[in-house]
Amino acid sequence: MGNNRERPIGIFDSGVGGLTVVKQVLNELPNENIIYFGDTARVPYGTKSRETITHFAMQDVRFLLSFDVKMIIVACNSVSSNSIDILKRKFEVPVIGVIEAGAEAACYYSKQKKIGIIGTDATVESNAYERHIMEKCRAELIYSRSCPLFVPLAEEGFTEGEIPEKIANKYLEHFKDIEVDTLVLGCTHYPLLAGIIQKIMGNNVKLIDPGIEVSKKVRNILNINDMYNDSVYKGEVKYYLSDIPRRFEKVAENFLGGPISSVIKIVIDDF
Amino acid sequence: MGNNRERPIGIFDSGVGGLTVVKQVLNELPNENIIYFGDTARVPYGTKSRETITHFAMQDVRFLLSFDVKMIIVACNSVSSNSIDILKRKFEVPVIGVIEAGAEAACYYSKQKKIGIIGTDATVESNAYERHIMEKCRAELIYSRSCPLFVPLAEEGFTEGEIPEKIANKYLEHFKDIEVDTLVLGCTHYPLLAGIIQKIMGNNVKLIDPGIEVSKKVRNILNINDMYNDSVYKGEVKYYLSDIPRRFEKVAENFLGGPISSVIKIVIDDF
Repeated sequence: MGNNRERPIGIFDSGVGGLTVVKQVLNELPNENIIYFGDTARVPYGTKSRETITHFAMQDVRFLLSFDVKMIIVACNSVSSNSIDILKRKFEVPVIGVIEAGAEAACYYSKQKKIGIIGTDATVESNAYERHIMEKCRAELIYSRSCPLFVPLAEEGFTEGEIPEKIANKYLEHFKDIEVDTLVLGCTHYPLLAGIIQKIMGNNVKLIDPGIEVSKKVRNILNINDMYNDSVYKGEVKYYLSDIPRRFEKVAENFLGGPISSVIKIVIDDF
Repeated sequence: MGNNRERPIGIFDSGVGGLTVVKQVLNELPNENIIYFGDTARVPYGTKSRETITHFAMQDVRFLLSFDVKMIIVACNSVSSNSIDILKRKFEVPVIGVIEAGAEAACYYSKQKKIGIIGTDATVESNAYERHIMEKCRAELIYSRSCPLFVPLAEEGFTEGEIPEKIANKYLEHFKDIEVDTLVLGCTHYPLLAGIIQKIMGNNVKLIDPGIEVSKKVRNILNINDMYNDSVYKGEVKYYLSDIPRRFEKVAENFLGGPISSVIKIVIDDF
């Protein structure tokens, strides 16, 4: 069982966005060993078809399994919403997505059960948040929309000032009109824009970061199954990418909330 | 030789952006048969490393060669600027990029030889436009910068109004300050924003669309080499993509300037 506890947790995402999830997992589970894979050669997934997203996600999981991971966290909302059922069916290792955790939290925090969701086209079109929310609680109102400009804004570090505010205002207008009391940040990039989103929605609206919620959920699962790494040492985190993109270090630091240790480039087509 | 003339022209791009080049080629060379490939599963290329861009471009060319094309047009500025020398060296078929044609036109139109270039990170960091411009004419001043938000603006069809204008103003401010008289639209998406870019730069600044310039250049090459398709019938255009992305038809129509005929999905990893 000791061996089981020390096995790493695998986390993957379409690119660097998943580093916002790594940040939360490190916070919640500092002793776990982590293998991160970001498919930076083929990022983004969120505009692509379900078929292509699933094909890519299968390769991502197979890559992580080569490290004998004890669990896989699907940090990418586009994969969690389109392909999680297939991944759970095809692989024996537990596969945990961000959507379910985000939906549970939305039900928990929303008093009036008026819930908004923002994400990529792939996430919004899948209706996965809606389905999970309706399973957990009887929401009175759920509304979702995609916000395609939020990803490049976050990657450029263009997260405050007039332009991002006007863009956010345009995207969020309808959520304000229908008075949602809870808004799910259904894309790993959006927590970087939380300041501006909160400002526009007002302080009475609760923002849900599924990265935080999935980290708590993973801690519970590890505890219940006696798989928690009880080492007294800080866990080791290894980063693998399919491309070292331009401006990578600066972008990664913004997402991770600190400098990133060395990364290794791999060829994902081989998996 | 008749056979040679009827062989199709291959055109490829990282995604749907290259349809703005197809539009110009169809305009200039209506009788040519065309095979278009857009690598929509792995789009964009412009934020990725030179190594990854070259790896993808080699696969794209190999796919087009399976149709016995008589010439290849690299519609993608990121490939043209980072990988064209390798493509020319590795393959026997003539490979024509947009950069050279765009640079020649910039030299031709710029009276004061003060030239600006906008494009992706990959294009701007390569300095390929600068190198080609300095080969063709003694520019007094060349300045380039990337405009990452222009791509999602063009894909969303978000091409007029306050938000795109403010974004364009931010990106183009310095070009106005240094008084360039010519601005190269060094990304296939940017012609969709030409209206707003022209408005901000003023009517005295000449905008160069490398898609128009490469089409004229290809016509000359075909004429000189007696490879021009002199059929009296309109050429046939076939579209191949590595993914059928969400909202594809609407986006494609905006880029092509008309409805797109049927597209075929292929697996590019196999090439």
